[in-house]
Amino acid sequence: MADPGASLPTTGLELRSTVTDDGLVTLAVRETGVAAPGDDEVVVRVEAAPINPSDLGMLFAGADLGTATAVDGALPAVSATLSPTALAAQAGRLGKSMPTGNEGGGTVIAAGGSDAAQALLGKVVGFLSGNAYGQYRTLNLASCLPMADGTDPTDAAAAFVNPLTALGMVETMRSEGHSALVHTVGASNLGLMLNRICLDDGVGLVNIVRKPEHVEQLRRAGAIHVVDSSANTFGGDLVEALRATGATIAFDAIGGGDLASTLLSCMEQVAGEGEEFSRYGSNTHKQVYIYGGLDRGPTTLRRDFGMSWSIGGWLLTPFLMQLGPEGTNRLRQRVADEITTTFASSYGTRLSLVEAVDPDHVRRYGRMATGDKALVTPHK
Amino acid sequence: MADPGASLPTTGLELRSTVTDDGLVTLAVRETGVAAPGDDEVVVRVEAAPINPSDLGMLFAGADLGTATAVDGALPAVSATLSPTALAAQAGRLGKSMPTGNEGGGTVIAAGGSDAAQALLGKVVGFLSGNAYGQYRTLNLASCLPMADGTDPTDAAAAFVNPLTALGMVETMRSEGHSALVHTVGASNLGLMLNRICLDDGVGLVNIVRKPEHVEQLRRAGAIHVVDSSANTFGGDLVEALRATGATIAFDAIGGGDLASTLLSCMEQVAGEGEEFSRYGSNTHKQVYIYGGLDRGPTTLRRDFGMSWSIGGWLLTPFLMQLGPEGTNRLRQRVADEITTTFASSYGTRLSLVEAVDPDHVRRYGRMATGDKALVTPHK
Repeated sequence: MADPGASLPTTGLELRSTVTDDGLVTLAVRETGVAAPGDDEVVVRVEAAPINPSDLGMLFAGADLGTATAVDGALPAVSATLSPTALAAQAGRLGKSMPTGNEGGGTVIAAGGSDAAQALLGKVVGFLSGNAYGQYRTLNLASCLPMADGTDPTDAAAAFVNPLTALGMVETMRSEGHSALVHTVGASNLGLMLNRICLDDGVGLVNIVRKPEHVEQLRRAGAIHVVDSSANTFGGDLVEALRATGATIAFDAIGGGDLASTLLSCMEQVAGEGEEFSRYGSNTHKQVYIYGGLDRGPTTLRRDFGMSWSIGGWLLTPFLMQLGPEGTNRLRQRVADEITTTFASSYGTRLSLVEAVDPDHVRRYGRMATGDKALVTPHK
Repeated sequence: MADPGASLPTTGLELRSTVTDDGLVTLAVRETGVAAPGDDEVVVRVEAAPINPSDLGMLFAGADLGTATAVDGALPAVSATLSPTALAAQAGRLGKSMPTGNEGGGTVIAAGGSDAAQALLGKVVGFLSGNAYGQYRTLNLASCLPMADGTDPTDAAAAFVNPLTALGMVETMRSEGHSALVHTVGASNLGLMLNRICLDDGVGLVNIVRKPEHVEQLRRAGAIHVVDSSANTFGGDLVEALRATGATIAFDAIGGGDLASTLLSCMEQVAGEGEEFSRYGSNTHKQVYIYGGLDRGPTTLRRDFGMSWSIGGWLLTPFLMQLGPEGTNRLRQRVADEITTTFASSYGTRLSLVEAVDPDHVRRYGRMATGDKALVTPHK
C-alpha cells in the first residue's frame, strides 16, 4: 500500500484512444498531469483496472483487431483499421483523444479538505471513472467505493460494472414482475457473480453457456440450471429449464444471431402449455434485454412467439438513475461487503500499460474469451 | 333495415375454419342455430364484416393461399395447405371448428329482458365478437357499440379493430412520454384514420407508404409528413420527417425485414444531433411496436442505434385492459360519434359468404393489398 504521507506525484502514464478520419484508431501510452484534489476529491494510485467488454468500444471503436500494428513513437502505441461503417458510427469522437477504462481499484494517496475526503486517506477504493487505465486519478468521492481495511486493491478493481450489472438484473427482474431469469453468458465473471447472487437470494436462474467445460464449472459453483448452447439438445434443454424456473426475462450479452429469438420462442412454448389456443399467442409477457454485443452481427427475430414480447437495450447507468440514490447505495454497500466472495473476479492475464498496447495482447483480450479476462496493472 | 318485430330466424349461415393434422385448413360455409338472447344479450342481423389482416390467421392459419382449392360438399368450402412449420404453430386448434371474423355491423332484431338490451332493439350497432362472418349473432351488450340513428350498418362494420387500434396508438404514444409517432402503413384504412385523428388532435405523424401513388393519396387527405419507402431517398426523407416531428415511437404493421431497424437508426441519428458523443448512443428512448405481420419473414435488427431502444409486440386487447373500462368507453364513444368521418372505412370488394370461400377471391383478399380490403356481406 502506498504511504499516504508520500508527496503527490505530478505526472503519471495513462492510455488514450483517438479515432482519425483516415479510419485508424490509435491507443497510446502518454504522460499526463496529476491534478491536486478539490475539497470533495481524492487522488487514487491505481493498482488495477479490468478490461471489460464494455471498455472495448472506447478502446478500439469497433476496429478490426486483426489489423492491430505497433506505432513508432516516444511512448508505445497501437493502431488498427476501422471499416467505413464502423468509422461512420464514430463521428462524435473524431480527432478527440478519449480517456479509457470504466473502473479500477487502488489506494487513496491524497485527499481534499472535506471531512468525507479526509476519511478516505489511506483507504482502498474501487472507482468508476471512465479513465481508469492510468497510474493516478483525481476523483470525486461519489465515484469511489471504500472497501474494508485489508482489502487488496486488485480485488476492488471490478466493483462497479459487473457487480452492479448483476444486481441490476435481479432488481429489474423483480420490478418488472418476473420471478426468475435467464443469463446468456453464464460462465463469465458477471455470470458467476449472478449465479452466487441468485443462490444467496433464492432466485431461479437459467445459465446459458457456450462450451461443455463451462457446464461443469458452473455446476461446481452450485448452479442448478445450466444449458449448453453448443449441444444438439439445446432447444429442449432450454425449454426444460424455463419450465422448471418459470423464467420469462433474459439478459443477453451476445446480441447478434438468433439467440434472443430462440429464448422468446422457448418461453412462449412454456407459457402456452395449458393455455387455450390464441392466434396471438400466450398472454405471458416475455422480455429479452440485450446488454452487450459479443456478436456484433444483426439480431434476427423469427417472431414465432406470439405478441406479448419485448426486446430492448439494457444499460447500467440509466438503470441506476431510475433506481435512485437510495437504491444505488444499497447495491453499492452490498458490493463492498461481499467484494471477495459474491463479487470476486478472476483474470487470465495481467498487463502493464505498455503491454496493453502490444498488438498480440490486444488481439488476445479483444477476443473477450470467457475465462481469459485481462487486468491492467498500471504500476507493474 | 330489418323489422324488429319480425320473428327470429332459427338458423343462419356462417364461416368456420378447421385445421386438420394432414396439414390442411378448410374454410367452410355451414348452417348454425340462432340462440335466443339472454337478459343482457341481443340478436344482430349481420349486414357487413370486414376482412382485416388480423382475421387472416384464424381464417387460414398461415396456409399458402396459392394452394387454395374449392372443396366439394353440400355447402361451399375452400381448403389450402400449411407448411410443416405453420402446422406446428396451430397445435392448439387442431381438429377444432373455429369461428371467424373479429368484428361486424348490423341491426338488432331481438333483445333480452334487461332494460339495456331492450334499448338496443332496432338500433344499428358495430360489434366485436370473433364470429362476425355469419348471418345472425347473439351477442352480449358489452360487445356492441350503438350508432346514431340513421347510420348505415355497413358503416358500423369496422368500429372496433382499426378505430380503437388507431386511437390506442396515440394513447400509447402519450402514456409512454412520446410527442409524435410513425406509422408504417400510412395509406391503409387504419393509417387514414390515424392521419385524421392526428390532424384533429394536433399530434405529429410520420406516414410511411410503400408506393408513390399513396404519397399523393395521403397528401390529399391533409397529411403533412409522408415518406415513400420505395424511393431511393427513403433514409434521408425519413430522418427529415423524424427531425420535423420529434417522433420517437413507431407502430409497424409489416414486421418482417429491416424496417424496424431502419426506424430505430434514423431516430437515433436525429436524437444524437447536438448530444455529446457516447459509445452507448443517445439517451433518447426509441420504441418500435410491431402490431401486424404483413411480411411474415424474420425481423432483422442491425443494432446501430445505441442502447436506449425497445421493440415489442402491440395488441389491442391487452392495451384496452391496461387502459381500463373508463378509458375504453371514452375511445368507443369517440368512434361512435365519428364513425362516418374520422373512422370511415372503404373497401375494394364486397363478398357474400359463398364468395368468401371462392379460391380466386381468397387469393385476392389474402394479399391484403392496401386499398383493396374486402367486406363480407352475409345476406348478399
